Amino acid sequence: MPLQLCFATGNKGKFNEAKAFLEKEVPGLHLKQCSAELVELQADTLEAVARFKVEGAIKSCKGNVFIEDAGLFVPALNGFPGIFSAEVKKMLDCKGILKLMEEFPNASQRDAYFQACTCLYLRETREIKMFIGRIDGIITFEERGNQGFGFDPIFVPGEPSGNTRTFAEMGIEEKNEISHRAKALRELKDFLLSLA
Amino acid sequence: MPLQLCFATGNKGKFNEAKAFLEKEVPGLHLKQCSAELVELQADTLEAVARFKVEGAIKSCKGNVFIEDAGLFVPALNGFPGIFSAEVKKMLDCKGILKLMEEFPNASQRDAYFQACTCLYLRETREIKMFIGRIDGIITFEERGNQGFGFDPIFVPGEPSGNTRTFAEMGIEEKNEISHRAKALRELKDFLLSLA
Repeated sequence: MPLQLCFATGNKGKFNEAKAFLEKEVPGLHLKQCSAELVELQADTLEAVARFKVEGAIKSCKGNVFIEDAGLFVPALNGFPGIFSAEVKKMLDCKGILKLMEEFPNASQRDAYFQACTCLYLRETREIKMFIGRIDGIITFEERGNQGFGFDPIFVPGEPSGNTRTFAEMGIEEKNEISHRAKALRELKDFLLSLA
Repeated sequence: MPLQLCFATGNKGKFNEAKAFLEKEVPGLHLKQCSAELVELQADTLEAVARFKVEGAIKSCKGNVFIEDAGLFVPALNGFPGIFSAEVKKMLDCKGILKLMEEFPNASQRDAYFQACTCLYLRETREIKMFIGRIDGIITFEERGNQGFGFDPIFVPGEPSGNTRTFAEMGIEEKNEISHRAKALRELKDFLLSLA
């Protein structure tokens, strides 16, 4: 069945990734980008940020809408940059994270994960549904690759098994197999298919 | 005239600084701490964070209320940690900022400033008033002192003229002469006195 859905995001890269994936997987889905004024909270968890954000999107977007929030979490840095990833990227860039990680020269201390939270609001039933995706990996010692965006050049995902390339060294198709964002979108996709 | 005012903050250190100063300066003022659930926004400016925060405080606090927000802004780090100062302090602490500043070994690159924004809501007139205070200084090469809180141990204020001590090496009285917070509170105090 035809389904109109808005992805409220100002990030064209995120939108393109989502559109490529969801329109392929969900027959009849048409994904539009809408630029609701989104309010980002300083909160303890990605879920709290996402819930607040979707509540804002509901006000300015008339139909079904979802938002997404993602972050890079580095346990050695007590979770930094976490929910502040987008702003920290602008201010410190990848090299800021690498600088902070100089205190942790052993590979075993350089664990990190990307987490994404996709939050959907269905206008008809007024339901809010949340979908989480996560990919574990490690922080590199230098930037590598020029694809993707955000902290992709300094993150080597632990999938596929034995991988040594950063997200920024993978094509969008390959990244879409394993990324946190893709996993959250896959959960969203499964839910959308269940509505049909 | 007697004036009841709430300071909505979860930070006992901030409250004590404000109470010591305001109750001395404004005859009849009684300052209470109230623990409204405060919502911190990820925004571009301290003023935007403060306005959003006071709007939250208004909902849970019945009387006159003010909130305060402050941050350390380092131009060499594109304003980091800025409005995220409190959260960054928890995650990276002073040593994280010092680590990032290793890229800037010249004193001339280590300029920084603390800025505070005090935002008052007057119940009777439904007015919101905003007061800004700022102190310029430099980031040290090591932590010094154990007074104050936050990033005080790595910030040498440029006042009094010729000063080489960090905020954390000053007593609360001396810090209250020059600090960003004190300057914003002094603006608030002048406004409160003008109401009498």
